Amino acid sequence: MEFLKSTTAKEARQIIQAFPLNLKTETIRIDVAQGRVLAEALIAADTIPPFSRSLVDGYAVKAKDVQGAKETSPAFLNLKGEIRIGEEALITISAGDCAYVSTGSMVPQGSDAVVMQEQTRRVPDAVEITKTVFQGENICYAGEDIQKGTTVLQKGKRITPLDAGVFAALGVTSIPVFIKPKIALISSGDEIVSIDETPSTGKVHDINRYTVSALVQEGGAQVTFLGLARDSISDITEKLLLAQDYDMILISGGSSKGERDFITASIEKLGGEIIFHGINIKPGKPTIFGKLCGKPIFGLPGHPSSCAMVTVCFVLLLVRSLQGDTEYEEKTAEGVLTANVPSSYGIEEYPRVTLKKTGEGYRVTPVFSKSALISSLVRADGYIMVPEGTEGLEKGETVEVHFFA
Amino acid sequence: MEFLKSTTAKEARQIIQAFPLNLKTETIRIDVAQGRVLAEALIAADTIPPFSRSLVDGYAVKAKDVQGAKETSPAFLNLKGEIRIGEEALITISAGDCAYVSTGSMVPQGSDAVVMQEQTRRVPDAVEITKTVFQGENICYAGEDIQKGTTVLQKGKRITPLDAGVFAALGVTSIPVFIKPKIALISSGDEIVSIDETPSTGKVHDINRYTVSALVQEGGAQVTFLGLARDSISDITEKLLLAQDYDMILISGGSSKGERDFITASIEKLGGEIIFHGINIKPGKPTIFGKLCGKPIFGLPGHPSSCAMVTVCFVLLLVRSLQGDTEYEEKTAEGVLTANVPSSYGIEEYPRVTLKKTGEGYRVTPVFSKSALISSLVRADGYIMVPEGTEGLEKGETVEVHFFA
Repeated sequence: MEFLKSTTAKEARQIIQAFPLNLKTETIRIDVAQGRVLAEALIAADTIPPFSRSLVDGYAVKAKDVQGAKETSPAFLNLKGEIRIGEEALITISAGDCAYVSTGSMVPQGSDAVVMQEQTRRVPDAVEITKTVFQGENICYAGEDIQKGTTVLQKGKRITPLDAGVFAALGVTSIPVFIKPKIALISSGDEIVSIDETPSTGKVHDINRYTVSALVQEGGAQVTFLGLARDSISDITEKLLLAQDYDMILISGGSSKGERDFITASIEKLGGEIIFHGINIKPGKPTIFGKLCGKPIFGLPGHPSSCAMVTVCFVLLLVRSLQGDTEYEEKTAEGVLTANVPSSYGIEEYPRVTLKKTGEGYRVTPVFSKSALISSLVRADGYIMVPEGTEGLEKGETVEVHFFA
Repeated sequence: MEFLKSTTAKEARQIIQAFPLNLKTETIRIDVAQGRVLAEALIAADTIPPFSRSLVDGYAVKAKDVQGAKETSPAFLNLKGEIRIGEEALITISAGDCAYVSTGSMVPQGSDAVVMQEQTRRVPDAVEITKTVFQGENICYAGEDIQKGTTVLQKGKRITPLDAGVFAALGVTSIPVFIKPKIALISSGDEIVSIDETPSTGKVHDINRYTVSALVQEGGAQVTFLGLARDSISDITEKLLLAQDYDMILISGGSSKGERDFITASIEKLGGEIIFHGINIKPGKPTIFGKLCGKPIFGLPGHPSSCAMVTVCFVLLLVRSLQGDTEYEEKTAEGVLTANVPSSYGIEEYPRVTLKKTGEGYRVTPVFSKSALISSLVRADGYIMVPEGTEGLEKGETVEVHFFA
């Protein structure tokens, strides 16, 4: 009965990602927007650069006037003046003319190339050009960076430091973003004590509070810890009632059968629904997913490393969905396995690994450990996924490494 | 004269990383320590787990009592009781005994293995064990995760979400970390206007303020923007005077010769020193590095994408040093180039690239663009480094991709 609603990893991901969510947005200044998710596509309202600019210090010319110019037979051009940076170019370049420009200066009308200063010589009232340039050389044309009306950033994109430059270029001072999800976190278990206490024999510190909270915050959510529940329906129910107004509820604990029963019974007592109980994964099998007051709720395994892995592999999917983060692309890397990785058929496994660059390329080494070891996570750079339809991976195979957030 | 103190990329990195710094520390709670850098190694003051724990729900036994047990010839053991999770195990297991344990329960004295419940049958006053276990099976022994006295995290390590679990496991509530560096940021240039203004012809928005600020904040620093300086020694000097109490000064602007001269002259006027002026890199050649009031100062190129690349490749080195981040390991990935990448001999180049996983592995595609294009940075996943001693890379070569922060 216990794993009646047990599911495959793939089904679990589909169920989690299909959970109906109600996303809200707000408008914020671009200087505090880093890491937030765009709630509307950014359409360029301007052309960038707004005018053709010189990419070097030198002379704006007509390219055909300097064709074939070289050190021993330079082209002589009439110097019409200088266009200072930040100024409008009021000079017009006609055949045989040139004008001094700085890097970033507006390129004058009539000019179609800039010769670098190093390839010129100043002579009285004229400039000797000692090198040929092609049409467009050393010019960034108006609109060459961004054309007015184009979609520069997609709705659902998480804003990076470099995106900030695009907003600034376009003079966009405020942007609509999805609101940061508010997540309620509860730890449970008769064996768990707060880290401020010294555990008596048989008890251990509350590790999951800190790893889950840090992972989920790094994923872009706000976390409120609602406390430590004893293994009883009344205590768990009481804590769950405090969590009703949050966008998602996470309750860790329940690696033993009795503990899990308290969590599922409490959810059902409050009118919630258990969507699945148990995923065919390792570590993390005793994971519960359900709905309470219309919000998603995860029951996470009590084992610290299992709890952390389920948070990374499953909870963060929903943390991203709750932020409208539809453009997410995970950064992964490839490397060659330095050892066999046994696994069980029918179970998707997540062995933790280190990734090291060697003279012969990237090498991936499993950090073998019992699933309870929290130190194994600290030693690892990330994890690999062994599909449920295999009985392990072999030394020498190329595998994809998922980095820890 | 202009590039008199021009240097190679390698020398620039060495000079930047050898800059003498005076690091300060503070003590903070572990729940706000994510992303901060440990100022002292973490030595385990406890043994984790503090007692031997069961990894499953089942029966604690002596392994030799169940040797050869199978479905058709089970071992019969006397049930001494149950050890509930969180309780001290007061039962002792003698030959022929067993005790019920939950996942996470303390394993009783005398027992050296746990049989999973699924491999047992309860009969009146006894338990039938239907499977052999090896010594230590399903037990996480005291100290198997962390031995008391071992160094668990090194001084200089940036704290990850998973490290938080180690602190919690050991009951460490507060830790010493390096203080977040305070960085002063100035934009300069007669062509630059604030993003709140509409630029007149010839002028452009201040892009660098936002990209540099976001990159450096993501690197772990606090940034204060001190304003926009005109291209004059008096204006730049005035802004630099405001920056004296910061741990590092960044001034962007100065892609043209005149602008660079204002910056170097202002630093020297205030008694500062120009350590190098110009790096043999592309983009980013007109980078200035110096010392002012004993603090490092960068003059960053005015071109937005050059400015961003120099921030990523050089400024962030010092942002990390200022945090005592000595254990930094960059996450990189390998892929195969889909196009030739030309480059100039004698210059280290940083072409921006995309990295895509295909059916044939990872493919790296250069985002060709003029260096002034800010949109090229948004389209790229990262960059590759073309060493100064080559004239480019060829399609089909395996290259290392550095991700944007």
